[in-house]
Amino acid sequence: MKAARFYDKGDIRIEDIPEPTIEPGTVGIDVAWCGICGTDLHEFMDGPIFIPPCGHPHPVSTESAPITMGHEFSGVVYAVSDGLSEKIAVKRRWVHPISNAIPLDQAALIEPLTVGYHAFVRSGAKAGDIALICSGGPVGLLLAAVLKAKGITVILTELSAKRKEKAKETGVSDYVLDPSEVNVAEEVMRITENRGVDVAFKCTSVNEVLDVLVETTKPSGTVVIVSIWSHPATVNVHSVVMKELDVRGTIAYANNHEETIKLVEEGKVNLEPFITQRIKLDDLVAEGFERLIHNNESAVKIIVHP
Amino acid sequence: MKAARFYDKGDIRIEDIPEPTIEPGTVGIDVAWCGICGTDLHEFMDGPIFIPPCGHPHPVSTESAPITMGHEFSGVVYAVSDGLSEKIAVKRRWVHPISNAIPLDQAALIEPLTVGYHAFVRSGAKAGDIALICSGGPVGLLLAAVLKAKGITVILTELSAKRKEKAKETGVSDYVLDPSEVNVAEEVMRITENRGVDVAFKCTSVNEVLDVLVETTKPSGTVVIVSIWSHPATVNVHSVVMKELDVRGTIAYANNHEETIKLVEEGKVNLEPFITQRIKLDDLVAEGFERLIHNNESAVKIIVHP
Repeated sequence: MKAARFYDKGDIRIEDIPEPTIEPGTVGIDVAWCGICGTDLHEFMDGPIFIPPCGHPHPVSTESAPITMGHEFSGVVYAVSDGLSEKIAVKRRWVHPISNAIPLDQAALIEPLTVGYHAFVRSGAKAGDIALICSGGPVGLLLAAVLKAKGITVILTELSAKRKEKAKETGVSDYVLDPSEVNVAEEVMRITENRGVDVAFKCTSVNEVLDVLVETTKPSGTVVIVSIWSHPATVNVHSVVMKELDVRGTIAYANNHEETIKLVEEGKVNLEPFITQRIKLDDLVAEGFERLIHNNESAVKIIVHP
Repeated sequence: MKAARFYDKGDIRIEDIPEPTIEPGTVGIDVAWCGICGTDLHEFMDGPIFIPPCGHPHPVSTESAPITMGHEFSGVVYAVSDGLSEKIAVKRRWVHPISNAIPLDQAALIEPLTVGYHAFVRSGAKAGDIALICSGGPVGLLLAAVLKAKGITVILTELSAKRKEKAKETGVSDYVLDPSEVNVAEEVMRITENRGVDVAFKCTSVNEVLDVLVETTKPSGTVVIVSIWSHPATVNVHSVVMKELDVRGTIAYANNHEETIKLVEEGKVNLEPFITQRIKLDDLVAEGFERLIHNNESAVKIIVHP
């Protein structure tokens, strides 16, 4: 069967690999759609980062490059426990069932939506709060969708025309600010009547944005860092201390899928508009990675059909 | 009456000032002892920092330099509301009564002890946890005393011989590590059997120490920044994200005096050994500030008798 395999920085190959074995305690999944994650892109551009390099197996998974990529996927269970067949075999605990209310293409976005849900949980935000999200990439937009579903007012910053439009048309953001057009800190203070936001989410690793978040978060508020950083950040610690801010890291999720899926099944989050392109596995590098690298502005979520 | 007045950086004068007026809702206090705080020292060396410069009154207090210094003090209430007399007059809400179990000289240390108590509250630490404190200045040592009283294991780092000795002789620290003698990160991981500490407290503004705290705090643990910073810090945000750390600022206190005073009255914290020198107000600069600047290693808490 075909799979996208990461060998090294800039070297992802679509190859034929043996079909997986369905060992006891695992289920076989026929993958329907798989999203391209920002971390996949980071691996391709600057990796290996999370993927253990060839010859250096990961202490838990024992795997190393070449590794089959893709972790934002939906599919249909075709075998349980000791069947033997094709596609992907995973431990049961990693399988999150969905009802027929969620089409399989949208279901591929459950994973990044859960990342947003976990960031929401980490923030401690509650209905009635005002949140600032910088910026509106896929996770930023999906996080905004979660926050709106939870009754939180959302201020989103974004430069890209496509993503600004998406934030507006989907209604996941009450205010969309373009840092190239307005002074974000000033606008946030105006919107919050100089109170500052209750929570702020950093969904980009641009250092200056962290300064804006620390500046515009209210005393005793929370700044959540969602983005992956390949370099240390400079932080205005004096403000963190004087305002008694909480600066919290968040990564992936832990026991958040059930609540996240419920939001989609109940129609509180609509994932459909965030899929901006559907491509074939063979076009992964040319149509997927290269597009996201060179023309990032035009896409929100690209999903791949194997 | 005599008072230490801050005029500008390096310019603190012992002057005669008018006695305070006891306005309605205030009480008059005959100051017994007053501690020299690290922030007093910062004002003297690098100020004005917290003190509004002459001609720039503070928006809340409406005061500006010259300002009478000293905020770590104990004393005896000699007038309530509309008496008129001398020493200091403050709003009742700022007065924290103590029993006769606490001598007035030790009572001058209640204020910095409360700073430690508030940092403990901000950390969320609980009995059975392991805490790392960097380093053992007055607040670090008093914070250690609070943590020990709360059943928390304390690892303290400190360079100064006097303060290391104090940490050992008072028993407020289970482990005292000297960064000039051992690799603190390695030692902490050895002590915690590679688990990392539950909470870590940054009581110095040395940037490298922040790296050690982020490195040695367990996943989902908390790093509390207690120190005042005059410059931005560099933070390994990647670790904050990947370990889902909480980095929390803490400043002063809020509704913590009652619990703090109880710890001392119940004998769970003994403040006496932390007073290393008693001086007269006239000797404040020569014996107090200059000593702390040039021979900081030899003192823990210097208290002043007016």
